[in-house]
Amino acid sequence: MSDSRLSTLPTPCLLVDEAKMERNIDRLANHAAELGVSLRPHLKTTKSVDAARYVLNPRNPAATVSTLAEAEVFARNGIKDIVYGVGIGLNKLERVLDLHRAGCRLTVLLDSEAQAEAVAKASREAGIAIPAMIEIDSDGHRSGLTPQDPILISVGRILHEGGAELAGVLCHAGESYFAVGREAQRKFAETERDAVVDAAAALRQAGLPCPTVSVGSTPTAHAAADLTGVSEMRAGVYVFFDLVMSGIEVCSVDDIALSVLTTVIGHQEKQGWLICDAGWMAMSRDRGTANQQVDQGYGLVCDENGVLIPDLMVAQANQEHGVIAVRSGSDATMPELPLGTRLRILPNHACATAAQHQRYHVIPKEPGAELVTWERFGGW
Amino acid sequence: MSDSRLSTLPTPCLLVDEAKMERNIDRLANHAAELGVSLRPHLKTTKSVDAARYVLNPRNPAATVSTLAEAEVFARNGIKDIVYGVGIGLNKLERVLDLHRAGCRLTVLLDSEAQAEAVAKASREAGIAIPAMIEIDSDGHRSGLTPQDPILISVGRILHEGGAELAGVLCHAGESYFAVGREAQRKFAETERDAVVDAAAALRQAGLPCPTVSVGSTPTAHAAADLTGVSEMRAGVYVFFDLVMSGIEVCSVDDIALSVLTTVIGHQEKQGWLICDAGWMAMSRDRGTANQQVDQGYGLVCDENGVLIPDLMVAQANQEHGVIAVRSGSDATMPELPLGTRLRILPNHACATAAQHQRYHVIPKEPGAELVTWERFGGW
Repeated sequence: MSDSRLSTLPTPCLLVDEAKMERNIDRLANHAAELGVSLRPHLKTTKSVDAARYVLNPRNPAATVSTLAEAEVFARNGIKDIVYGVGIGLNKLERVLDLHRAGCRLTVLLDSEAQAEAVAKASREAGIAIPAMIEIDSDGHRSGLTPQDPILISVGRILHEGGAELAGVLCHAGESYFAVGREAQRKFAETERDAVVDAAAALRQAGLPCPTVSVGSTPTAHAAADLTGVSEMRAGVYVFFDLVMSGIEVCSVDDIALSVLTTVIGHQEKQGWLICDAGWMAMSRDRGTANQQVDQGYGLVCDENGVLIPDLMVAQANQEHGVIAVRSGSDATMPELPLGTRLRILPNHACATAAQHQRYHVIPKEPGAELVTWERFGGW
Repeated sequence: MSDSRLSTLPTPCLLVDEAKMERNIDRLANHAAELGVSLRPHLKTTKSVDAARYVLNPRNPAATVSTLAEAEVFARNGIKDIVYGVGIGLNKLERVLDLHRAGCRLTVLLDSEAQAEAVAKASREAGIAIPAMIEIDSDGHRSGLTPQDPILISVGRILHEGGAELAGVLCHAGESYFAVGREAQRKFAETERDAVVDAAAALRQAGLPCPTVSVGSTPTAHAAADLTGVSEMRAGVYVFFDLVMSGIEVCSVDDIALSVLTTVIGHQEKQGWLICDAGWMAMSRDRGTANQQVDQGYGLVCDENGVLIPDLMVAQANQEHGVIAVRSGSDATMPELPLGTRLRILPNHACATAAQHQRYHVIPKEPGAELVTWERFGGW
């Protein structure tokens, strides 16, 4: 049965299932409430003011962003409590100050004395105490100081005594994306919690303040069972979920709220291929499931209504061509999908796929209601 | 020595070296002239009206595009002879006709009777003979009919007798991207040429016209030594080149005209890592060199002036973090690159990296001249 609401959309384009998105949002909001921590959603996945309205707490719209461009757009739209969750570049401090002058409390992140000194100096010169959190490393994933690193205290002291605001500590257990299953992810959640709690204790023992103790990644946020000592958690991709997240069992494939609508534009019967107009430009080059237990190629294939077609996947992608095939080793047969058939592709990585598009076409939860368009933005 | 022109650019951002770009453009233009074929550049790499002005022949601005959005933008900017080089979707014919009504000769591509019938029907109903080329397959890469396929003649006949315009045959030797070195690529160029020349002969023998005989991919376009029977060639990524192209020896690393300007935002000395603000959002997730002889990670690292730093690469990428490290197995040492240092990253795949950005910052060939901005666009 064809969905007439989708038939006039140009392809490829991005679809959001509002009901699934709300279910995902509620799930983590409830879990955060059970754990007694506030939630500071990461808006880097959706990059949309419309989507942000769903995910933020209207009474306390606290957000995380990955670029200053996001902070600037969201601040203009009334979101005034933002953590910029990437180590602050020394070339970005003027824009940070401009956001403060515009009434946005933007908190920066850092893990070195040189950054702390630059933030303190900029704070003094501008007469604005820039809030800064110290990044803590719990798993060797990327950035941050270990809780035992003596630099932690000196960074805290430079901020606190130098004119900036020592706002707390923040950790992101990025290695949890490679942990399969709730139990493995819970261990990462515990390590993440222990790292920030220890860091906060070290700062406080040195006579320094540490009001906010922040943890988060989508896997650890969902798996955490005890966040004693933590004040807030962050997560981003949970709003949409994706095949990487279902591959490590944070969600089911049925929870994935984001898909790419595509049209069949060719057949190569000898090869067993169907060609569609969702190539890597529409799906992104993200192959995040390549090293998981089940490689999902460039995405799983659903019919127009979002019902999974067994063992069909986007096996290859060129810029504007997706090559759909039956999963290697499967005895499923390619169904008859004539030219012009519309399909939906579930993405490996929602952040990367959404970034390839300029807008979302949202299928409302009310059956039969008209589609809604949400604009999204990019850039830095 | 720091380049003051770059010091005010926000990072990450996209840089174009105008001198290298012109050198690349001239190289292929000269080669096409030597071979006696016209050149129909593919504008999918640059997606910029400003860049198109460099690459198109001002007396005969014939272009190839990968989306109807490209065709629409370029048509509005005076480019009226465009081949849409992706198999036409049955849902896209109304936009094709609108382009014709706006004075653009847009040629579509197809490889099936069903597409030919739809194009012929749309032509008759609109009173506009839509030009269509038949896609020929020379290497099993993706789409197209083999020259021997009897469907070729029936597709040609449906177009020619049904009210459309049979404009010719077109082949893209996509497998040539995996052929290393001039000799291997020349074999692909010969196979590509033979396929279209045979297909054109088959059509003509059946009493059908075949005015245009088109070949092209960046590797085969550069390697071709004899294009007898061919009328035009197409190529796209050659304007910028990239690490995938240098990896198969179509160009040298020094020819790469596109780079991402980034700032050092952190150090993890124990890991031997330097963190920069060019993550996969700035570089794309394209790992096209992963299966080449030399894996270049997410890109090679140059200083701010574009001089390669030996054995330094973006070894990992998160959304807004690039992790720079010395190439595994190298005995090079990480140079001292303090916080705030600006670097340039050469990309794996120029089409994919450029697509992550909204504009180019062009370094003019005149020494010391001010930077120029070229806007680019995306979407479908």
